[in-house]
Order: sequence, then structure tokens, then C-alpha cells
Amino acid sequence: MRQAGRILPEYRKVRASLSGFKELVETPDRAAEVTIQPVDILGTDAAIIFSDILVIPEAMGLPYEMKEGVGPRFPEVISSDADIARLKVADGGELKYVYDAISLTRKELNGRVPVIGFAGAPFTIFCYMIEGKGSKTFSEARKWLHSTPESAHKLLDMITSSTINYLKLQVEAGVSLYQVFDSWAGVLSNELYREFCVPYLDRIAAEVDSVPNIVFAKSAYFALEDLMNTDFNAIGLDWTMNPREVHQLNQSKVLQGNLDPTILYGSDSYLVQKTKEMLSSFSGISHIANLGHGVYPDTSWEKVKLFIDTIKQHRN
Amino acid sequence: MRQAGRILPEYRKVRASLSGFKELVETPDRAAEVTIQPVDILGTDAAIIFSDILVIPEAMGLPYEMKEGVGPRFPEVISSDADIARLKVADGGELKYVYDAISLTRKELNGRVPVIGFAGAPFTIFCYMIEGKGSKTFSEARKWLHSTPESAHKLLDMITSSTINYLKLQVEAGVSLYQVFDSWAGVLSNELYREFCVPYLDRIAAEVDSVPNIVFAKSAYFALEDLMNTDFNAIGLDWTMNPREVHQLNQSKVLQGNLDPTILYGSDSYLVQKTKEMLSSFSGISHIANLGHGVYPDTSWEKVKLFIDTIKQHRN
Repeated sequence: MRQAGRILPEYRKVRASLSGFKELVETPDRAAEVTIQPVDILGTDAAIIFSDILVIPEAMGLPYEMKEGVGPRFPEVISSDADIARLKVADGGELKYVYDAISLTRKELNGRVPVIGFAGAPFTIFCYMIEGKGSKTFSEARKWLHSTPESAHKLLDMITSSTINYLKLQVEAGVSLYQVFDSWAGVLSNELYREFCVPYLDRIAAEVDSVPNIVFAKSAYFALEDLMNTDFNAIGLDWTMNPREVHQLNQSKVLQGNLDPTILYGSDSYLVQKTKEMLSSFSGISHIANLGHGVYPDTSWEKVKLFIDTIKQHRN
Repeated sequence: MRQAGRILPEYRKVRASLSGFKELVETPDRAAEVTIQPVDILGTDAAIIFSDILVIPEAMGLPYEMKEGVGPRFPEVISSDADIARLKVADGGELKYVYDAISLTRKELNGRVPVIGFAGAPFTIFCYMIEGKGSKTFSEARKWLHSTPESAHKLLDMITSSTINYLKLQVEAGVSLYQVFDSWAGVLSNELYREFCVPYLDRIAAEVDSVPNIVFAKSAYFALEDLMNTDFNAIGLDWTMNPREVHQLNQSKVLQGNLDPTILYGSDSYLVQKTKEMLSSFSGISHIANLGHGVYPDTSWEKVKLFIDTIKQHRN
């Protein structure tokens, strides 16, 4: 459950003691500390390393800033082949602070729960590198797929190689599983997803295969059939997706998800009821119980704890 | 093809001569002028009245501003039952400038092509009234559906009644067809769409039934089955949706759509090829050829014209 930590008062305290989000990401002992907080306070079954998907463009030579209350911003963006030529494939060594945070987390957890690593999917990273920030349509990034597809493939390929190097070093540092987030996949179509996403995800799954992995393509319902045929072990579902229908596509896959995170705004009894309904909708399917998206920032941590407790009670 | 006009130099000239977007919306002769531009210059088969879906909250007592390059902003938002109590059901009379623009457009077109009216779907208007602007998640609006569903229904009901009054007066002023845009439907789920959207859309279709109508719920693939069973005559599809699969749900419906608007960034030959593929994907289905979303603002008007010419050539 990524971003569950950020709603905790304990997290906000650590965050306030530092200059900003990036300092926290880049300071291994503090990153480890906030990684472990949800395990201690909320009772999660695993710890997902505190970091950001945008460390990859930065390692490739395109630094990002995190603007308080606004989101990520890239002072420079990629807008031509010449810009691509100025980038490098990250060998992963640039991101030592992440591996240090993983090792520290692992050491401090002392086997209590596993540590999960993650990276952005190549297309989602591509979107940020071209647009420089979030967007409702990512039309600038999508333009490349139609007008300069070879350049798009070139950049996606570089991102993929960088991500593979990065994930391998995360595994070496001790993650027991990694997740790939394709946050903006939903702006594509089945055809474009097949051409510009699946081959790169396939490469990641093939080359970083020593631990289990999960891929989550938010809103990309049209890509589910293709994703269910990749070598990823588990597929994340958002709350619009029907677990039983997805399961029918390939019964060997584990499914993750998928409670609508806004249900955590409801009353306790409503939340418990909806969580139980969600669990039932996955019955008979190998299932990682989770939300269908990150925790929204104004969610109360008590509701997240109730969600987790309800799942644990159901399991026992 | 809503928003096709805004990419025209002729539109920008009119727009620059006025104080802002709202003045254009509220000045019938200029609104009529920019409504007709795409017919003259691009050769569209119909004229969709230049206006904004947010005139409805304004008529209900919640004024909006249009910030240049940013989007709509509501200085005040709805955050409680007391806020709802201060709103009124619009009788439609507040929006005389829209009907005047419709009458003028009709008169000036002199039967060349029909005029299309439109309104936002109740849930999409509800999102704006609560959030006060666009959002990636509309989590504030979705919170109401889970935490205070009765209040949500109360507000949706008032928006629906206002919209019905408004659309009836649009029909009286001369629109030959109206379209209902559910731009933010994609943040919901099948279950929520069924509870908080379908009944209000049904009421609109039942009460404004003297001209044909279209409903377009962007990204709400999960709602298609329900939408195909409403009384709307036509259903809009975005570019992620498969026309043949949707057609199977109810063969009596006309389908509209659905070229990915970013394909208009590609070369001429690519655009022609993709347009022909799109047209083939609807073959045997009653079809209103269109994009799968509005025209993106940096699209060149020559590409839109080529898209339209390709469709016309195919039809002849």
C-alpha cells in the first residue's frame, strides 16, 4: 500500500525536520525510518521503500524537483533527439541512497516483514520526462508515439535499461519483491500499450527475475489481457476492474487490489462492509489485499488501520 | 467535435478582442460567430454551440471564473448541506445568452447544418461544484458519495433539475440534438456510477426527449453496459473503447467516436490511415464519426480538416 505512510503524524514530523521531500528520499536512515512507520503503526504485512519513481530520470541526467503541495517538476524536459542524446543510461550506481535505505530498512525490520522495491514503468517515466510534470492528458508525451515513434522507442529503451539496472541493485540490497507502477498507462489504448509499453515491461520482468514482481497499470483496463500474459507474477487492479473477469484471462496470476481509496472517507461500518465485499470479490483467487490506488493524502490513518485490521481478521 | 473551433486563428482573433472566455460565452453574436467558424473553415457536419458546462452551477448560484491557461476556478465551493441550501434549482431563464446564441447561430446557418446543444452530466458538474476546479482524482467529490450519500443525492438532484430546464430551453431555441458530457465519470466504478449517475441521466433523457441525444462518459468503460440501456439515442466512445464490443451490448444505439486526438499530431498519411482504420472499426454500426475526446489545444487546424475530409470521402 504505497503512500500509506504519508498520512501518519509520525511521518509528517520527520518530513518537517528536513528541507523537503527529496532530502528525505536521499537520506537513507530517515527514509528507512518512514518506511518502517506503517509496519509499526498500521500493521502492514510488508514495507515498501520510501522513494520516488522520478529518481530514474534524475539518474539519467534529468533532475526533478518536488514542489510542496504541487507535485514534481522538471526544470528541463526532453523535447528532441538532441535532448535524448544528452541523457545516459543509468547504471544504477547513481542511486546508492536507495540501496542504503533498503539495507537499513531490512536490518532494522530484522525479518519481521519483507521489503518491497519499486520503479516507474518506462512509459510513465517517459511521460514525466517529456511533460515535466503531471497532466490530465499527457498529450505532449503521446504526440511522440504518433509523430516520432522511433525517438519514443529510443527513449523508452534507455529508461528500460536504466530501470533494469536500478531494480537489480534494489534486489541485491535486499528487496523481496518489486513493483512496477504504470501510473499514466490509462491515457493510451490497447494498440499503443502493446507497442510502447508491453515490450519494455517484458524486458524488465525477464531481466529482473530473481524475486517476484507486480505490475500495476492504473486505469489501463484495455491492457489487462496483455499484462496477464507478461511474466509478471502479480497484476495490480484499480477499483474499476473486476477481479473475476481479470482472473479468467490467466488463472495463474496473483491479483492485487482493489478497494476504492475514497471508501476510506466513509464511516467505520461502511468501510468494514466494503472491505469485506472487496475481499469476497477475490475469493478463490490468489490475492494481495490492497487499495486500488495510493492512499489519498487527507485520509485519516485510523481508517487505514481499520482497513488493514479487517483484512487480517478475514484472513485468520 | 467539441472544441474544434478553439484551434482556429479566426477564433483566437475573436477571443483576443474580448476581455476573456466568459465574455465570449455571454455575448450571443460573438458566441454564434465562433460556433459557425468550424462549419465554414473545417467543414463540420454540425455546429456545436460555443458555451461551457459550468454555466449551470453559475445559474444555481455558484459562479465560476475561467483562468487563462489554467482552467475553471470556483471562488466558492460546496462543502456542506448549508452550502447546498444556499443554492437554487435554475429555471433556465438565467442563461438567456445561450438561447440567444443558439437562435442567432441557427438563423445565420440558415439550414446549412444543424445546431447541437450540450450540458455537463450531473456528476461532472457535482465534481466541479465541490472541488472548485479540475482534479486528477476528484477525491473530495467522491468523498461525499461514501460519507454523506444523501447530501450527494440532494445536490445531484438539484443539478439534474437545473440541467433539464436548461436543455429544454436549448431545444426551444433551436438545437436539433443535445449532448451530455460526463467528463469525470472515469473516477467512479460500475457500482457508484449506477447509484450516482445513471438515475440522473435517465431523468434527463426522459424529460428532454423531443430531439435526439448523446451521452459521453469519458473513460467510464465500466459504465458502458448501463449507458447502453439508458434512453439516450447515441453513446460517445473514447479511443480506449472497442466499438464492436460496445455495439454487442445493445445494437439499437448509435455510437459516436473515437479517434485518439493525439493521432492528429502525426503525419498526414498516418492520420488518414488511422482515420480509415477507425471508420472500419465502426462498419455496420450506426456511427457519428468523431474524435474520442475534445480537440487538444495545440492541434493544427489543417489536421482537423484532413480528419474531416477523410471521413467525408469515406462516406461518399
